[in-house]
Amino acid sequence: MSEFNNVTVVREANVYFGGKVTSRTVIFEDGKKKTLGFMLAGEYSFDTGAAEIMEMIGGAMDVKLPGSDDWKTFKAGESFEVPADSKFDLVVKEYADYCCAYLEDGLPAC
Amino acid sequence: MSEFNNVTVVREANVYFGGKVTSRTVIFEDGKKKTLGFMLAGEYSFDTGAAEIMEMIGGAMDVKLPGSDDWKTFKAGESFEVPADSKFDLVVKEYADYCCAYLEDGLPAC
Repeated sequence: MSEFNNVTVVREANVYFGGKVTSRTVIFEDGKKKTLGFMLAGEYSFDTGAAEIMEMIGGAMDVKLPGSDDWKTFKAGESFEVPADSKFDLVVKEYADYCCAYLEDGLPAC
Repeated sequence: MSEFNNVTVVREANVYFGGKVTSRTVIFEDGKKKTLGFMLAGEYSFDTGAAEIMEMIGGAMDVKLPGSDDWKTFKAGESFEVPADSKFDLVVKEYADYCCAYLEDGLPAC
């Protein structure tokens, strides 16, 4: 079990795809935001505003990242990055418990 | 939009009914716990340990409280109490976004 300490949590859920994807927004002391989300089985497409780091907490998702034709599976403890202003496709076979960090300043340079 | 400030959030989701009901645990400075949860459409039964106050944040649920034969609808902004060590039935027609407060010392006396 891991925790975020000294944070603010927005009470209202963020709801997507008719509730098959939901998340709660967590705001850190430095103003940075993450969402803790849960996806039921399904196929989803997401558009990013800011760049994102998606970290799998539980379950798994198959992901096709922008500019790629390949699908890759990410499981608990694994993560992937998505550039700003892009689109990525997901397939969740059972469920996915995830944490999404928003990088307002963009992804770190390689 | 309302917030919980200066709290700890457990990252891992609590998952019930195959993911149709999920929640995140929020721990307050005084050690008290609440969960922020989301229910998709369905019929559910829950057993309580501690007494609970269920507050609707969004959506609605029909509830049959312990010892009652009547169903009552609760919508955003409304709440109901459930005694410790009891069982209650819920029907969610669309979705329910809720906050559940656990009262380790039992419900306040009437």
